[in-house]
Amino acid sequence: MNRRDFHRHVVGIASVAALDPGSLRGLMPGTAERRRQVGLQVDGARLSENLQSLAAIGRTPDGAAMRVAYSEADLEARQFVTELMRKAGLAPSVDLAGNIIGRRDGTVSGLAPLMLGSHIDSVPQGGHYDGPVGTLAAVEVAYLLEENAIQTRHPLEVVVFQNEEGGKTGSRALIGEVRTAELDLETASGRTIREGIRLLGGDPDRLDEAQRPPGDIVGFLELHVEQGAVLDRTGTEIGVVEGIVGIRRWAVTVTGAANHAGTTPMDQRRDALLAAAGFVQEVNRVARAVPGSHVATVGRIEAFPGAPNVIPGQVRLSLEIRALTMDRIAELFELMRREAERLGEETGTSFDLEGFYESHAAPTDERMRRLVEAAAEELGLSRRRMPSGAGHDAQSMARLAPVGMIFIPSVGGISHSPEEYSRPEHIEAGANVLLRTLLGADETLP
Amino acid sequence: MNRRDFHRHVVGIASVAALDPGSLRGLMPGTAERRRQVGLQVDGARLSENLQSLAAIGRTPDGAAMRVAYSEADLEARQFVTELMRKAGLAPSVDLAGNIIGRRDGTVSGLAPLMLGSHIDSVPQGGHYDGPVGTLAAVEVAYLLEENAIQTRHPLEVVVFQNEEGGKTGSRALIGEVRTAELDLETASGRTIREGIRLLGGDPDRLDEAQRPPGDIVGFLELHVEQGAVLDRTGTEIGVVEGIVGIRRWAVTVTGAANHAGTTPMDQRRDALLAAAGFVQEVNRVARAVPGSHVATVGRIEAFPGAPNVIPGQVRLSLEIRALTMDRIAELFELMRREAERLGEETGTSFDLEGFYESHAAPTDERMRRLVEAAAEELGLSRRRMPSGAGHDAQSMARLAPVGMIFIPSVGGISHSPEEYSRPEHIEAGANVLLRTLLGADETLP
Repeated sequence: MNRRDFHRHVVGIASVAALDPGSLRGLMPGTAERRRQVGLQVDGARLSENLQSLAAIGRTPDGAAMRVAYSEADLEARQFVTELMRKAGLAPSVDLAGNIIGRRDGTVSGLAPLMLGSHIDSVPQGGHYDGPVGTLAAVEVAYLLEENAIQTRHPLEVVVFQNEEGGKTGSRALIGEVRTAELDLETASGRTIREGIRLLGGDPDRLDEAQRPPGDIVGFLELHVEQGAVLDRTGTEIGVVEGIVGIRRWAVTVTGAANHAGTTPMDQRRDALLAAAGFVQEVNRVARAVPGSHVATVGRIEAFPGAPNVIPGQVRLSLEIRALTMDRIAELFELMRREAERLGEETGTSFDLEGFYESHAAPTDERMRRLVEAAAEELGLSRRRMPSGAGHDAQSMARLAPVGMIFIPSVGGISHSPEEYSRPEHIEAGANVLLRTLLGADETLP
Repeated sequence: MNRRDFHRHVVGIASVAALDPGSLRGLMPGTAERRRQVGLQVDGARLSENLQSLAAIGRTPDGAAMRVAYSEADLEARQFVTELMRKAGLAPSVDLAGNIIGRRDGTVSGLAPLMLGSHIDSVPQGGHYDGPVGTLAAVEVAYLLEENAIQTRHPLEVVVFQNEEGGKTGSRALIGEVRTAELDLETASGRTIREGIRLLGGDPDRLDEAQRPPGDIVGFLELHVEQGAVLDRTGTEIGVVEGIVGIRRWAVTVTGAANHAGTTPMDQRRDALLAAAGFVQEVNRVARAVPGSHVATVGRIEAFPGAPNVIPGQVRLSLEIRALTMDRIAELFELMRREAERLGEETGTSFDLEGFYESHAAPTDERMRRLVEAAAEELGLSRRRMPSGAGHDAQSMARLAPVGMIFIPSVGGISHSPEEYSRPEHIEAGANVLLRTLLGADETLP
């Protein structure tokens, strides 16, 4: 079947009769009938089974995923996925950064590849969905294409990025962002990143060569569990990710005058905590007053000297703002900074706001968002546009190529925990959206 | 000179000629003339000299007072004051609690004594005025009476309370408040209170007998440095203490829901810190809105888990309210508790307020306050009524007898520090007010 026929099939107007019957192995009775109605679908049972097999690697007695990058479990899991890639007709290799890339040719020579994938390493005591869902769905999509002898215009690259949880090392290496000093950092495995890259089959001394030049990839797609509760709470099946938010963090120091809480009248105080409390409220007020999906958080606070009978002379707190553009972050920060200045004047205190962390925003590509929406529409799935508050490999990839990202619900929004869970039907739905988005991108991207 | 004649003298209508010239030793030229104008006055130079001698005992190389209760320096200082008492015509003894009491007979048999005094122990690395000023001024008053052969109606007791800074042990023993378990607490000296009492010449096994029954003392007067900045800032010479404030403290726990700061939209948060910030502001607002000299303070705050990228699920903070009556504290707390309830409803959080400390308010006696005011008036000293935000031995004594308390300014409000300082002219003025108040009380109390 050529690409054009296949596309007619996927959007539900081609007959299942056009499929090679030999590729239908493993389908349950009734599946062919269902396909006839809605078009080509991934094999949800197979995907589920593969997820279970992967979850067994490095699983702790209490059910957590203990598969940190560069651990024995990570190596074993990579071997498992490499075997799956081979079965799916992908030609796997390891790049100089230690990422696994399974390649499949396209029909048009000279086109840059479409890349899809995620990661399989976990945080310590993590869950079984963050990473594996997107990785194994990408392999499943390739499997399906192979089974159905469908060839895309662009070559495909299914990627397993290494050490996502420990700092997105694999994807950041593709954009030349991994500094030499970083290589000597010890990871949760006990190995340094340098040792880890070598262990995976990469070459830390030639990391520069792992970089992909602009234009080297035509587009990148990632399916991932939401890791938040928006989809679950709103009963939405598909999140159309508008981008990975940028993050800026500030260390805020409020300085007043420490004094005896018994002998200092209310009107003679320069209470740093009173000023800080006003600031916490203004941060919230400003974030809500400005329309958008951004968030602002004060997560840490401490008063000094910190005794019940001493008026706080100093308060230290953290401010974090996340938004889809760095300009929005700057705008929100400026409004908050002005409130801090006003509060300082009112309370006889001073505010010092010092930036200590910045992570750039990575908007997804509008064409990709529309393809994701169209895929969900065709499959009858509910969907909503939303930012990704968490970081992902797609964030690095957005520097290289147009990126699309698909979220599926996390039950209760729980993540980075053995309690992390996404329902099989949502995983299957997400993989089907990934499939259709890929084919749409293959048709529309140059 | 009998008491009546003396009283005329003190209020400035008697002539200095009535004094025994032999008692004027140590006076500088011109002092007799000054006395003629304003009536009998304490010897400021002698008081100052005695304060300096006491300050030398236990002084560290960098000038701090290191005279914690039960230390060698404390013992030496007690010996010094005992000698001074003898010179002042007081008969010193040590009671069963280890307090030094210097007694002087009155003219009317069967009257209960008037007591005046303070403490001489210091905090570690303390100052030279907190305690010594009131103690040595009381001795100076006795000295002056002795020099001028003035006898009061009531017997006098000049007291040096032991271990004020370590828990008001001496004065609390007089009201039977020192529990047996407390005796085994180790103090800053390294000795337990039990060992300390024995060292001072008391008997920890007979502490019950140290208790003074109601009516055993007709009144108590204490002169003390303010330890706050109210008098210094307002340029007031005398503080007419309305009472030692009561204190209640609560551990406040605000519980919301910890969540990922990136993936939880603003309108889906149950941010414990946002609620806590509202509470900090309400505590301040309520304290200021209700008229009075009370204070309310949040001195400690911490958010949990306390990471910049996690919405606080719990915040723990302290609430302290101090007021001249426990009813006022209860009233303020109730208003704050209601605000907490409202904030909890508004933010989807819950407040738990658990009391963990209580110290009862000790109002001074209105007759004593008026005597202090009259004394300041006669001496041409500026004065203001004010609460004592800090605790004092007078607090214990208020349970036994009508109490009067006089404050003099602390420069900059600094206390419990080597930087603590009160000007000699203020100390002298305070001692003169103490003298006149004592004589007024002697005349008016039964």
